Amino acid sequence: MKAEALREVLLAFQRGEMTLEDVLARLRHLPYEDLGFAKLDHHRHLRQGFPEVVFGHGKTPEQIAAIVARLLEHSALALVTRTDEAAYAAVRRIAPDAAYHPQARMITIRRGAPSEPEGLIAVVSAGTADIPVAEEAAVTAEALGNRVERFYDVGVAGLHRLLSLHERLVAARVIICVAGMEGALPSVIGGLVSVPVIAVPTSVGYGAGYGGVAALLGMLNSCSANVVVVNIDNGFGAGFVAGLINQPKTH
Amino acid sequence: MKAEALREVLLAFQRGEMTLEDVLARLRHLPYEDLGFAKLDHHRHLRQGFPEVVFGHGKTPEQIAAIVARLLEHSALALVTRTDEAAYAAVRRIAPDAAYHPQARMITIRRGAPSEPEGLIAVVSAGTADIPVAEEAAVTAEALGNRVERFYDVGVAGLHRLLSLHERLVAARVIICVAGMEGALPSVIGGLVSVPVIAVPTSVGYGAGYGGVAALLGMLNSCSANVVVVNIDNGFGAGFVAGLINQPKTH
Amino acid sequence: MKAEALREVLLAFQRGEMTLEDVLARLRHLPYEDLGFAKLDHHRHLRQGFPEVVFGHGKTPEQIAAIVARLLEHSALALVTRTDEAAYAAVRRIAPDAAYHPQARMITIRRGAPSEPEGLIAVVSAGTADIPVAEEAAVTAEALGNRVERFYDVGVAGLHRLLSLHERLVAARVIICVAGMEGALPSVIGGLVSVPVIAVPTSVGYGAGYGGVAALLGMLNSCSANVVVVNIDNGFGAGFVAGLINQPKTH
Amino acid sequence: MKAEALREVLLAFQRGEMTLEDVLARLRHLPYEDLGFAKLDHHRHLRQGFPEVVFGHGKTPEQIAAIVARLLEHSALALVTRTDEAAYAAVRRIAPDAAYHPQARMITIRRGAPSEPEGLIAVVSAGTADIPVAEEAAVTAEALGNRVERFYDVGVAGLHRLLSLHERLVAARVIICVAGMEGALPSVIGGLVSVPVIAVPTSVGYGAGYGGVAALLGMLNSCSANVVVVNIDNGFGAGFVAGLINQPKTH
Amino acid sequence: MKAEALREVLLAFQRGEMTLEDVLARLRHLPYEDLGFAKLDHHRHLRQGFPEVVFGHGKTPEQIAAIVARLLEHSALALVTRTDEAAYAAVRRIAPDAAYHPQARMITIRRGAPSEPEGLIAVVSAGTADIPVAEEAAVTAEALGNRVERFYDVGVAGLHRLLSLHERLVAARVIICVAGMEGALPSVIGGLVSVPVIAVPTSVGYGAGYGGVAALLGMLNSCSANVVVVNIDNGFGAGFVAGLINQPKTH
Amino acid sequence: MKAEALREVLLAFQRGEMTLEDVLARLRHLPYEDLGFAKLDHHRHLRQGFPEVVFGHGKTPEQIAAIVARLLEHSALALVTRTDEAAYAAVRRIAPDAAYHPQARMITIRRGAPSEPEGLIAVVSAGTADIPVAEEAAVTAEALGNRVERFYDVGVAGLHRLLSLHERLVAARVIICVAGMEGALPSVIGGLVSVPVIAVPTSVGYGAGYGGVAALLGMLNSCSANVVVVNIDNGFGAGFVAGLINQPKTH
Amino acid sequence: MKAEALREVLLAFQRGEMTLEDVLARLRHLPYEDLGFAKLDHHRHLRQGFPEVVFGHGKTPEQIAAIVARLLEHSALALVTRTDEAAYAAVRRIAPDAAYHPQARMITIRRGAPSEPEGLIAVVSAGTADIPVAEEAAVTAEALGNRVERFYDVGVAGLHRLLSLHERLVAARVIICVAGMEGALPSVIGGLVSVPVIAVPTSVGYGAGYGGVAALLGMLNSCSANVVVVNIDNGFGAGFVAGLINQPKTH
Amino acid sequence: MKAEALREVLLAFQRGEMTLEDVLARLRHLPYEDLGFAKLDHHRHLRQGFPEVVFGHGKTPEQIAAIVARLLEHSALALVTRTDEAAYAAVRRIAPDAAYHPQARMITIRRGAPSEPEGLIAVVSAGTADIPVAEEAAVTAEALGNRVERFYDVGVAGLHRLLSLHERLVAARVIICVAGMEGALPSVIGGLVSVPVIAVPTSVGYGAGYGGVAALLGMLNSCSANVVVVNIDNGFGAGFVAGLINQPKTH
Repeated sequence: MKAEALREVLLAFQRGEMTLEDVLARLRHLPYEDLGFAKLDHHRHLRQGFPEVVFGHGKTPEQIAAIVARLLEHSALALVTRTDEAAYAAVRRIAPDAAYHPQARMITIRRGAPSEPEGLIAVVSAGTADIPVAEEAAVTAEALGNRVERFYDVGVAGLHRLLSLHERLVAARVIICVAGMEGALPSVIGGLVSVPVIAVPTSVGYGAGYGGVAALLGMLNSCSANVVVVNIDNGFGAGFVAGLINQPKTH
Repeated sequence: MKAEALREVLLAFQRGEMTLEDVLARLRHLPYEDLGFAKLDHHRHLRQGFPEVVFGHGKTPEQIAAIVARLLEHSALALVTRTDEAAYAAVRRIAPDAAYHPQARMITIRRGAPSEPEGLIAVVSAGTADIPVAEEAAVTAEALGNRVERFYDVGVAGLHRLLSLHERLVAARVIICVAGMEGALPSVIGGLVSVPVIAVPTSVGYGAGYGGVAALLGMLNSCSANVVVVNIDNGFGAGFVAGLINQPKTH
Repeated sequence: MKAEALREVLLAFQRGEMTLEDVLARLRHLPYEDLGFAKLDHHRHLRQGFPEVVFGHGKTPEQIAAIVARLLEHSALALVTRTDEAAYAAVRRIAPDAAYHPQARMITIRRGAPSEPEGLIAVVSAGTADIPVAEEAAVTAEALGNRVERFYDVGVAGLHRLLSLHERLVAARVIICVAGMEGALPSVIGGLVSVPVIAVPTSVGYGAGYGGVAALLGMLNSCSANVVVVNIDNGFGAGFVAGLINQPKTH
Repeated sequence: MKAEALREVLLAFQRGEMTLEDVLARLRHLPYEDLGFAKLDHHRHLRQGFPEVVFGHGKTPEQIAAIVARLLEHSALALVTRTDEAAYAAVRRIAPDAAYHPQARMITIRRGAPSEPEGLIAVVSAGTADIPVAEEAAVTAEALGNRVERFYDVGVAGLHRLLSLHERLVAARVIICVAGMEGALPSVIGGLVSVPVIAVPTSVGYGAGYGGVAALLGMLNSCSANVVVVNIDNGFGAGFVAGLINQPKTH
Repeated sequence: MKAEALREVLLAFQRGEMTLEDVLARLRHLPYEDLGFAKLDHHRHLRQGFPEVVFGHGKTPEQIAAIVARLLEHSALALVTRTDEAAYAAVRRIAPDAAYHPQARMITIRRGAPSEPEGLIAVVSAGTADIPVAEEAAVTAEALGNRVERFYDVGVAGLHRLLSLHERLVAARVIICVAGMEGALPSVIGGLVSVPVIAVPTSVGYGAGYGGVAALLGMLNSCSANVVVVNIDNGFGAGFVAGLINQPKTH
Repeated sequence: MKAEALREVLLAFQRGEMTLEDVLARLRHLPYEDLGFAKLDHHRHLRQGFPEVVFGHGKTPEQIAAIVARLLEHSALALVTRTDEAAYAAVRRIAPDAAYHPQARMITIRRGAPSEPEGLIAVVSAGTADIPVAEEAAVTAEALGNRVERFYDVGVAGLHRLLSLHERLVAARVIICVAGMEGALPSVIGGLVSVPVIAVPTSVGYGAGYGGVAALLGMLNSCSANVVVVNIDNGFGAGFVAGLINQPKTH
Repeated sequence: MKAEALREVLLAFQRGEMTLEDVLARLRHLPYEDLGFAKLDHHRHLRQGFPEVVFGHGKTPEQIAAIVARLLEHSALALVTRTDEAAYAAVRRIAPDAAYHPQARMITIRRGAPSEPEGLIAVVSAGTADIPVAEEAAVTAEALGNRVERFYDVGVAGLHRLLSLHERLVAARVIICVAGMEGALPSVIGGLVSVPVIAVPTSVGYGAGYGGVAALLGMLNSCSANVVVVNIDNGFGAGFVAGLINQPKTH
Repeated sequence: MKAEALREVLLAFQRGEMTLEDVLARLRHLPYEDLGFAKLDHHRHLRQGFPEVVFGHGKTPEQIAAIVARLLEHSALALVTRTDEAAYAAVRRIAPDAAYHPQARMITIRRGAPSEPEGLIAVVSAGTADIPVAEEAAVTAEALGNRVERFYDVGVAGLHRLLSLHERLVAARVIICVAGMEGALPSVIGGLVSVPVIAVPTSVGYGAGYGGVAALLGMLNSCSANVVVVNIDNGFGAGFVAGLINQPKTH
């Protein structure tokens, strides 16, 4: 039953051609979309600058460009993660305003100004090899309109460096903490600050690191109570939730 | 070197009894605590109403009471998790204002008024057996001064009930989602709202649920990007981070 | 001892050349195949349109073609799974009536009309990347003579779309539900319908998805009691069992 | 908005007190339950004899009795699994017509005649220790109105016994196959019949059986394509789905 | 201390140049090899036809040829496993009597006649993809001088074929049973015979087969008590132990 | 169809009351047991002294006694494993000739003389805590008629003790090697002897031993090619296969 | 062949009753123990104060006392781990000089003065619940004659406390670091010092800590290169190796 | 606040321009690095010859050369692990004194003489395939100034060879033991010596070796109490800690 049909039912009722009970019976079987439910969903995206995101891994440049083109029809912000320069070339053909972030391996397209969250998001990473995931988080948060400060190569085995950043870390509204190997960084940083710490385990390491399992388990068992965790290598998710936390609830 | 000793060094320098270089050399080896670092830490607790928390499992009532007594010397809020009535009796002897929450299996002691966060924290749980963990989250968040609304027995296999709560869920600033078995609830709720969802896997279930592993993995792999995860059965951590998200950054 | 030999034994007994005890002793050691057991097996295939299936992965086009040629000698329906265009070229040379299904990566050859099951099989999948496995299930079910309706890109994070399909899902005799990541879709769909749901976990995802383990465990622990599970990426098995369920027992 | 309120809206519209657009706007925000969605769900239970099931493990007899009492208000069939005689005593006080099945460790209450499926459900189990799970499956299927035939102690290491049952197994519309240890029974039986085989791994065994993991993995990797799997020890789920398969689609 | 030196010590003692205590003290610190321990080891190989084996995977043809050349200096039988034609070309240059077994991916060189065990070794495999491992077992056993009978493509889902082999299987002194996927074959065969069954899990399969884990666990949990297990894909080990079992203890 | 019935069929055919085709049709559907297949199985037990074994864990003394009584009707040797004195008391009431082996936690009943294998079975164990499993193996092998020599407390960390046993170990026809923790003993012993070594991992140990997993994996990956493995704590299986190896093939 | 026999051989040779070749032949087959190898082993214990250790878990007080009595015949130091007061009472009856350490759950008996290592061993632990394992390490090291300094409740979430200990930690020759949950402490301490850090994971924690697995993996993947690891809860091993490191090599 | 600023504060205090309290307040907030903490860290490297290490895997030759160039500015010893000839060519351009070790796959650059530890480090490996990891350990230890003796191809299945090395092994101050497959070597060697044994599991093997897991678990569960463990394939860590143990504590 289309919205048109719904109007017909109601008008028929008004005209006395249907009883009240008939109308109620019809309403009970309305398909959900016709009730504007889907519209609510689109509204959510447009109003809050929510990104539409494409997981680029395993898709051809053409497939990525086609999906992006469709997303841009109703979204002000589109992201492609785990992608490369070839996909960027394809996307630029349908969206010349697309930007490519090589370290983050992401494409971003924003149309219209983002909301302006006031707080700061700090992105901290442990080792050089963790930077791609950290950049995925940072670029995501920036695309959502946040101010982001990056602190890379901050390992727990070099406490002096970590401590020298203390003043700047406590200034953040939320901290994203990216680490592979033993994944101890979120616990240490969690103890230094009083804001949420989003821990991102990375698949960096070898041997008994098991592609990020050691870091993941370490973060889930953190002795710092302000640590929450996302999937291994999920920089996008961390950047996204950090943006939600930094954004004052307005609806 | 105590703070007293530090004063002596500086005064000796002022009196010309030490060279500038001597003073610098001494400062380089100052123990950290003497520099007031620990005070900063205590300050954090007092200013922000951060809880001191005791993991009660495996401790005797007497041990719990002794730890609580020590914590209350410098903290305005103390929580005991995974505890029971016997421990409560012991704690009440040293803190008559302690409260016991049987479903949450927690003891709380608050001294002084909490801060007043404006937003709402929703705590949703899937099955009856998940309620103790959900209550641990809810009581923790309430102890931190938050308004909390509980939605229990909201399983994904009964969508009609979940959907009837939609309006109330979108009113929350952050949602805590507690589920065992397949842990699908955070994904479904994450798709309905535009705020952070803190997923708490529980050890509820049997067989290939592996004491919460199935739920934990399900939540880490959520297709909803606004889901973050804490350890299995870690209601306290979820309630704590939810409170941090709900609390406007003020320092 | 061949069937011929069996006849000889019995005739010799009839002629009085063997005692009853001799015959009984011979019968006790009869090879099973000679008793028509294998024929029963072939009969099963021919009568019920059961497919012979070749797992194509790791086999050369020539090997696949040779196996298919042999199967077609006594089977009315042959399927090749996990295959490609090169194998199809080889098969077409020995079976010009073979069809190739690129999304499903399958080759099918049917000779003779299939049985005609009355019910409908719905194949639902969560993400774009799950489509190859969903197609393997759908093509298998169709090859067995079933009517199949496909519902792709129906994720649990977008409930409005799932709910808009409700009327069409309840029309199915059995539902195949294909999902990677957290594998929550079968639980949600299971709660909406009153028919068996065959859940197929896929290896889609990354990090703590562990190549389908998260989805598999989620499906095994489904809170919807009408969910059964097959191996990761086993679209063929799901399509096959769905066909058995949809087929009235006739022998 | 209650159904009452919905009537008011429609009547106000009929009386010309609301415009068509006003009515449409109100309908878009209707809570779902008010649209009769929940009723549809209850209808499902009543019409099809779907069971309401209580997982008894970890609940007191009083809790179980209270839940059962509530379920019986709108369900014609209630089951309690993983329960005992003490719970039965409590349940019988509120439902004197309740039956207890000691081997299955189940309580069943049926009110009104079940539907009458025509087919037969065979329940086969491998070892003596698998019988409680097999009985849970059999009692569940019987409670749903099915004819059930039990074949216990049919191990793959004793093929002669398995083969002697061949004729009776092929008579079934669906077979439930319960096995611990290596879980090989469903593969062997799957090869003998042309109907769906629902495999139930049990936690029977020791050492590298890992509480049912070996059996579960064996069944998921079955070389017989007609095998589907449920959770370890999930006799209820197997019996329930077997009933769905055996029940002709009627709506 | 070389054997020469040992002689010197004893002769010096005989000549009265060393006391008995001196000799005893020297003997206490003798390096083991000098006592002929190593010779004992070589003796073992020569006497019993024990193979020297090279694991070819990851070694260059030149490395393999060099190792084989060294082994042949003191061994009558050398095997190379997991190898290919290129390595065979290299080996043939230093051992023109080497033989290559393409299905088994092995090179064998035998010099001198093997012992002659009387019994028969049966090698049974489940699927086509298991044949390379089965051949590795068969070729190894043959190289050790055993009579080997091969039974391939004997899956548990096709019992009629398995049973037709019953008479020939019971004729074996030991059975090697090679299977991937659910690994059920050894349990079924173990129940048909009264000799040891050496089960070899293979990495054949996909999804929850986990590279042979499902088969390995199934075999370790076999309900047939005459089943022992070797490592995944370890055809060589199975063939070797089968040879030891088939060889009458003669020392 | 009973054997009686089979005779009737044949006699009817002889009398001309059935055609040849009728007889053949009847034979094709003969239940297997009626063909003496089960007798063959019983024959196997009686002829070769194969044990019937009851896994005692989780069974009541009365259940064990009842099963044993039934087994003794057609078996000359019955074993109960994982049992205790209470079960022994119950068994002795129905079989006064039963023997109890407290360290092995086994009950054995033998009627009639066993076969007399010529070789020796050595049972070696690593630590004190491994002795119950080692005894289960030793008592099983003895019950089957084998000569068994026990070597306990032979850890790889004390090589001098192991080496002092070298002469006696090489005298064995087959060696059972029982070890927990790292499970290194079979590898070391395997290198010292030229007979099959049956490795039995035990659940002895703690922490990362994971209830025998470390030992099991160590044994499966043994660098000694003459090592085969049975399930964790499966002393019975090891003793049984050792007996089969030690028993000359006679049928 | 006893040492006596060896003398006989040599004397016979001296007397000309045996040829040189005969003597050599006899020597080749000498049992190892007769060569004084075992004495070397005992020597090791006596000279270096190596402990004999009994793993008390699962042994009765009487068994423990009996083993200790035997050990004390040739060892100057005996330890019992994982024990209790009841075992202590039994041990004190045969060794009145035994000492009990309740937190460490250990019994120690030392006879004769230990060696006197010069360095200091620091034992650091993260949480209160880790203390029993830390004490097992500390008591073991002290029993071996080392000076031990304890630093308990030093979590990575409270860096200020850890840093205030910096001066005292760098004074140690080796550091034992005991931690459960995420096991991050060794990495942080490893970065602060330039001596070996022996990391001991504990089974403290819950949920995804998996009884010490998270801590174990974290420690194995430590980004501090001076970290080595022992088994979960293996305080004894850590204390023992720390003692070996602290002990100058003197032989 | 820079060191310059610190001087200004102190001089201002000396000049009477700041009160004592003002100075103390400033000191409390000093960034750590400004206090010379980082210098302490550099000091540690220069004084003790600690290496700076680059994990080469996944880095381009140019990246490696750039990092090495930066490290050499303040370190007397730089190592690159998991690298190759191409990286060596790049490094040699910026450090002509660099050395390449092909078996160890390492680049080393040393400037200035190392300290001279007195003891010997023995590096023992089990199989040929373990040599690269063993060489990584040996080259690391040598780069730190240690004398290293290599013992390769010393498997536990060939005890005679292991025992012939006994005298030379007991001469070592610390032993590095490298083994894949079952990882039994450290246990056996641990029982022969009275010094620490650092066990390095390798990813050598196949099947149930699981890339080093079997060896890792075996080593963690070693029955020799003097065994500690590092990560799978972590030759560098083993060589580094061995150097720390061999180096007398001098600060």
